[in-house]
Amino acid sequence: MEYPSKLIENAVEEIAKLPGIGKKSALRLALHLLKQEKEDVRELSESLVSLREKTRYCKHCYNISDADTCGICASHKRDNSLVCVVEDTRDVMAIENTSQYFGLYHVLGGIISPIEGIGPGELTIEAFVKRVADSAGSISEIILALPSTMEGDTTAFYLSKKLKNLNVKITSIARGVPVGSELEYTDEITLGRSIMNRMKL
Amino acid sequence: MEYPSKLIENAVEEIAKLPGIGKKSALRLALHLLKQEKEDVRELSESLVSLREKTRYCKHCYNISDADTCGICASHKRDNSLVCVVEDTRDVMAIENTSQYFGLYHVLGGIISPIEGIGPGELTIEAFVKRVADSAGSISEIILALPSTMEGDTTAFYLSKKLKNLNVKITSIARGVPVGSELEYTDEITLGRSIMNRMKL
Repeated sequence: MEYPSKLIENAVEEIAKLPGIGKKSALRLALHLLKQEKEDVRELSESLVSLREKTRYCKHCYNISDADTCGICASHKRDNSLVCVVEDTRDVMAIENTSQYFGLYHVLGGIISPIEGIGPGELTIEAFVKRVADSAGSISEIILALPSTMEGDTTAFYLSKKLKNLNVKITSIARGVPVGSELEYTDEITLGRSIMNRMKL
Repeated sequence: MEYPSKLIENAVEEIAKLPGIGKKSALRLALHLLKQEKEDVRELSESLVSLREKTRYCKHCYNISDADTCGICASHKRDNSLVCVVEDTRDVMAIENTSQYFGLYHVLGGIISPIEGIGPGELTIEAFVKRVADSAGSISEIILALPSTMEGDTTAFYLSKKLKNLNVKITSIARGVPVGSELEYTDEITLGRSIMNRMKL
């Protein structure tokens, strides 16, 4: 595609680097920005740079945080004996939204994925093992809330191996038929697992 | 939704102001940017500000341009007697891609849309009428290449009224069954028009 100016070509190329945004959408967004007030575009642009340059991570759970210790880790109302391990911040937000969990978290910052070149070293696994070891038994249960994919299972397996000798109970969130789903539309693997892992009423 | 930090909340809100991007996608994009190099985020952000603050428009056709006069208006190879009127830059790019048109353009910067509060005053219509009047007859044909919607038709009607006394031929791009389409899947309005406007072979 030939662009009418270098500036728009450059902006389109930068925007199209974002995941899920192709060149056509990038051009649409660039033309939209051209019609906005200068001040608004500057605010957008500054919010991105600030996000990248000033964001801090909680030194306990590695969640995104405004301070050294995040609000959840600092709270006196949370159950310190429970730690839920998740892939990223979005999962913390999703679980917090349920209002069903009152323990702490540990954010891995991704999951083990050989295809994308993410090994255990890229994640906060070592820091987590140290956190559990240093807790001197105050952590009684670790709940793995990882995606139900090959990568999620690999990460769960790796974690449970690493934590094996630390004498702590490791559980996983339940897999089963989602609430509100019809059995006939549920895939057979999920349905099979939900029978295997049936619960007492 | 409660965000883990002010910085991410602010970035998500700014990104979600873009058309077609909701809060969930904005959060996904923000978390993606957090994983990129600082330099890359700065480049993206600078490209947006430069785009908005430094973009110039051709003083003849109002297309986006690096200079006072755009490459198309400055070219000696174009047919100066033909002017194609389009909504925005994307349409110029689309028509240029066909390699079927060698005249000049006029970019309106939008179309008349009472719902979105865009009247003729917001567009470059007055400048276009002046351009045609000042051309002293050197423009022999004006081709309207506007969208086939209520707004497009309104704009075409308004333009043709404004240009009525300037003694210039006004045409519109053909509406009809797209090349490669089956008749049975073409909507009846398009098919009806394609019969009304049938061409001699």
